[in-house]
Amino acid sequence: MSLAIGIDIGGTKVLGGVVAEDGTVVASHRIATPATDVAAIRTVIVDLVRRLSAAHEVIAVGIGAAGWIDATRSTVQFSPNLAWRHEPLREGLSRDIDVPVVVENDANVAMWAEYRYGAARGVNNTALFTVGTGIGGGLISDGRLVRGAHGVAAEFGHVRVVPDGIECGCGRRGCLEQYASGTALVREAKRLASCDEERAVKLLELAGGDPNGVDGPMVTEAARDGDPVALAAFAHIGTNLGSALIDLVQVADPEIIVIGGGVVNAGDLLLDPIREHYGQAMGARGELQFAQIKAAQMGANAGLVGAADLARQ
Amino acid sequence: MSLAIGIDIGGTKVLGGVVAEDGTVVASHRIATPATDVAAIRTVIVDLVRRLSAAHEVIAVGIGAAGWIDATRSTVQFSPNLAWRHEPLREGLSRDIDVPVVVENDANVAMWAEYRYGAARGVNNTALFTVGTGIGGGLISDGRLVRGAHGVAAEFGHVRVVPDGIECGCGRRGCLEQYASGTALVREAKRLASCDEERAVKLLELAGGDPNGVDGPMVTEAARDGDPVALAAFAHIGTNLGSALIDLVQVADPEIIVIGGGVVNAGDLLLDPIREHYGQAMGARGELQFAQIKAAQMGANAGLVGAADLARQ
Amino acid sequence: MSLAIGIDIGGTKVLGGVVAEDGTVVASHRIATPATDVAAIRTVIVDLVRRLSAAHEVIAVGIGAAGWIDATRSTVQFSPNLAWRHEPLREGLSRDIDVPVVVENDANVAMWAEYRYGAARGVNNTALFTVGTGIGGGLISDGRLVRGAHGVAAEFGHVRVVPDGIECGCGRRGCLEQYASGTALVREAKRLASCDEERAVKLLELAGGDPNGVDGPMVTEAARDGDPVALAAFAHIGTNLGSALIDLVQVADPEIIVIGGGVVNAGDLLLDPIREHYGQAMGARGELQFAQIKAAQMGANAGLVGAADLARQ
Amino acid sequence: MSLAIGIDIGGTKVLGGVVAEDGTVVASHRIATPATDVAAIRTVIVDLVRRLSAAHEVIAVGIGAAGWIDATRSTVQFSPNLAWRHEPLREGLSRDIDVPVVVENDANVAMWAEYRYGAARGVNNTALFTVGTGIGGGLISDGRLVRGAHGVAAEFGHVRVVPDGIECGCGRRGCLEQYASGTALVREAKRLASCDEERAVKLLELAGGDPNGVDGPMVTEAARDGDPVALAAFAHIGTNLGSALIDLVQVADPEIIVIGGGVVNAGDLLLDPIREHYGQAMGARGELQFAQIKAAQMGANAGLVGAADLARQ
Repeated sequence: MSLAIGIDIGGTKVLGGVVAEDGTVVASHRIATPATDVAAIRTVIVDLVRRLSAAHEVIAVGIGAAGWIDATRSTVQFSPNLAWRHEPLREGLSRDIDVPVVVENDANVAMWAEYRYGAARGVNNTALFTVGTGIGGGLISDGRLVRGAHGVAAEFGHVRVVPDGIECGCGRRGCLEQYASGTALVREAKRLASCDEERAVKLLELAGGDPNGVDGPMVTEAARDGDPVALAAFAHIGTNLGSALIDLVQVADPEIIVIGGGVVNAGDLLLDPIREHYGQAMGARGELQFAQIKAAQMGANAGLVGAADLARQ
Repeated sequence: MSLAIGIDIGGTKVLGGVVAEDGTVVASHRIATPATDVAAIRTVIVDLVRRLSAAHEVIAVGIGAAGWIDATRSTVQFSPNLAWRHEPLREGLSRDIDVPVVVENDANVAMWAEYRYGAARGVNNTALFTVGTGIGGGLISDGRLVRGAHGVAAEFGHVRVVPDGIECGCGRRGCLEQYASGTALVREAKRLASCDEERAVKLLELAGGDPNGVDGPMVTEAARDGDPVALAAFAHIGTNLGSALIDLVQVADPEIIVIGGGVVNAGDLLLDPIREHYGQAMGARGELQFAQIKAAQMGANAGLVGAADLARQ
Repeated sequence: MSLAIGIDIGGTKVLGGVVAEDGTVVASHRIATPATDVAAIRTVIVDLVRRLSAAHEVIAVGIGAAGWIDATRSTVQFSPNLAWRHEPLREGLSRDIDVPVVVENDANVAMWAEYRYGAARGVNNTALFTVGTGIGGGLISDGRLVRGAHGVAAEFGHVRVVPDGIECGCGRRGCLEQYASGTALVREAKRLASCDEERAVKLLELAGGDPNGVDGPMVTEAARDGDPVALAAFAHIGTNLGSALIDLVQVADPEIIVIGGGVVNAGDLLLDPIREHYGQAMGARGELQFAQIKAAQMGANAGLVGAADLARQ
Repeated sequence: MSLAIGIDIGGTKVLGGVVAEDGTVVASHRIATPATDVAAIRTVIVDLVRRLSAAHEVIAVGIGAAGWIDATRSTVQFSPNLAWRHEPLREGLSRDIDVPVVVENDANVAMWAEYRYGAARGVNNTALFTVGTGIGGGLISDGRLVRGAHGVAAEFGHVRVVPDGIECGCGRRGCLEQYASGTALVREAKRLASCDEERAVKLLELAGGDPNGVDGPMVTEAARDGDPVALAAFAHIGTNLGSALIDLVQVADPEIIVIGGGVVNAGDLLLDPIREHYGQAMGARGELQFAQIKAAQMGANAGLVGAADLARQ
């Protein structure tokens, strides 16, 4: 049985694990992320690999990180959370790690985990939207990750849903990330609660009476209690996500679209408005089949499991 | 040298050719399309294949047609121009043709021709937008056509560019096809000429004074002469295409995007507004490289050359 | 007690009545509209006036008609339903009618009726949206009709709600009339029923199974029965109307906005989505008061009552 | 000859003047605004009135201030720049000033000045858009200011131009103020300069190389020099203003629309894109006349001249 190590580098913690061919995590360990110190991140990774490979023989190491990774899976061009800028990560690690190392985008490894072991197991054409602070994406065509010419395909957070809309950090206006991320959910809930205090009773109660005190878990809790303003905020992001999913169906025609990321923990509060908007538009296709929408299944281990398996391929 | 036959089935004519491995068309022939008669179309194809294979030994036949082709490249689910509905075309032809036959979407075969011999020669991640009466698309990831789970990927004409916009034949509102096809070019030119007769002097002169008499060639000719209303109509479709190209870059990260179809004959009248809108948004990526935009190079033979070569693969 | 005659010229019938100062219709009569014959329309009006004034002494005649009436209330510049083009209607009638005659836009007279005797009685700042085949409007500021410099103010159907949206007969794209009229209601219901046949059970049953057979009364009936697609069509027009109402509040700050026209017969099916969208946005004003929304109260006599009373002023 | 005092209360200075019936400013004086101290503002006003009325006999005092003034022109409900909240300003001043006092919105008084002595002199149906840090408005129908039921009509900055667009301080999304004010001009210029550094040469030179250093005068200067990015920023706000102007024409049908505020100092840089967008849409009206667009003529004295004259009415 061939084992591989997966490393999932988040903004606050680095999670490492030894992963078997069937996706089982045999051992794992986590360390806080020294986000601003490039040398220290490298040391943390090497330490994790040494610790995990002490007790297990591994054949490869896969690393998943947010950011733009080049098409050769070696260099991190840019990472939003970490100090990496044009960081030749694979080369740097190869001096200290004596099995092959590959670096992948975090949403790509999560996509791979869902494809190999999760919600899209064995489905050769599939896509993943991760809905968290921002929006990430992964895309598999014919059983292979679509990485693109420069390694930055499947950036679903930056397709446009609103012409002339809210400015995005990427420089463009109206990106999906501004209308369908967890950040957008909270912003919309704050805005609606300010406008409509009488209807936002439950949400404002949770927020101590101040619309600006609203956070994501409060929106979910209030929506579960039927707060109309919290439900409207979920409808806002769900409708926009639904629209982006339809556009992806036109471009990539997947069999399954997986919704992951922290916000999907809200379950049908998020999925219902997606499905409603999506189903309405897709219905026009008549008999022609189109993608099903499913919630992600791999949970917090998606990153390390996907990274390990991709390294093993 | 291995030869293959390509058949390009258009709304008015069926074009067949014998294609060499280097993309050369060794022989070709055309017959009018009996669009409404399913049996007659099949007969036309078989006749073309017999005529072309009489003088050349061919190893395969590839057929390109507008419409939804299933993922096994056998059945035409639906064709906008022809009488086919769930037509098992490959099976029907295989009785009379004794080399392998494959059926492909018309924009897919044009994409393949550009990838193998044209504007995107040897570029493993590339896309094609065909801008004609409608808008079609083709997408190549890692050297392979993206066909999708149900055979209908790369339907770029049906991504949304305007929320709540003009209704499309597909049932959705605001599709690219309604804002960037040749049909949209003419509609916009008519609308603007009605509103602004004083500035549309040249265009109205060509149209005999009646905005409703405007057609596509008139818009191109008037735009070449500097007619501000005709130029505004090109800016309208170019800006919308530019926006759709940016979205495709986010999803697929190609190295080259090829613009084909009849409207690209207008050259920079079409390409300049695309590039302007596209460049503005893409500039924000800084050093990160992104797709170049090129005009198609394969001309009227793109369909048969691509179909033949795909059949040979 | 001073009496006046009001004449309401519709596309199919001309309705005339003698109206008392308290808004009571003392006598009335109707004649079919000879829509394409300019001389015949004038004869019909004169006949109605003679017949009505035979038994009642009247001091003025007011005429309401769809179209652009000039600022002096004399000439019909253009009428969508009738053959009038630059028709000097008042001058033509004055030869045969010996009391003063004024001509007014049909929505203006309906607004005046609601202001004097109906839903906005005594409210000096008020507006009317008529939602029928198209959308008309009336506006009263400080107790006076806002007619504008050229007589064509309060054309609420032609404010823009969707940038780059559906083309309007007026030459612009995205006008309210394309998104919130009875015509828009039916178009949206047809589109949704085509896309979503499974959910449109009731609506399709009424339409004999064919989405294209849907008409306005069917949408209302299906919505009353809870058909989700019919309700979505009402939500579509209600949301767009709500948005236009908010814009009007910003411009004119009325105390009451009256919703009239045939579609308002659907009652809360129409008013609820208007109020929901409107209330959400208006809530942000906090303590500052803003316009209430009310259904029209004057019914089918609005036109003649308003025309008569305006003539008397 | 009857004289009146006008007081224009800005965020940084209070400007007072004695104004003759022909609009001449006979005497004037300015004092810094004690913006956060309600009692001190009142004292400043009273001091100005005493000083100005010492040498001139005046019959009334008019005060213009940014904010929501109630319909009786007595109370400032809310002011964005000053500490007033439900401030009974007229009552407070009447103890110390023995001629009649009225309080008006700042854009209303500027509108009145243009109507009486400026760009819309003698034009009974007219409107003013002030384009500065924010966007204000004034509207005159039939020779009378449209104040609305609650005193807050003509808030043109808060009509919607972009559905789901940028959030506005007012709680709504997509308000004109976010797309067409001086603030929007600078924001758009910064965004474009970040995206397109190569084309923004002149603008970045003025800003010391940093897109975030761009301010309004730099955008105007760079646009005068032909910088394409600065011109695009003016086109952005001009197109959006043009669209809002068309909507106002539909609602109020003015004879002249005046553009004032600090940004209009850029002259045709601002007016050309407004006129282009506006003219295109208005052309569809054919022979029917519509509003002309003019630059404001009253300059820095508009506020005090308008306030004085309104008080005198």
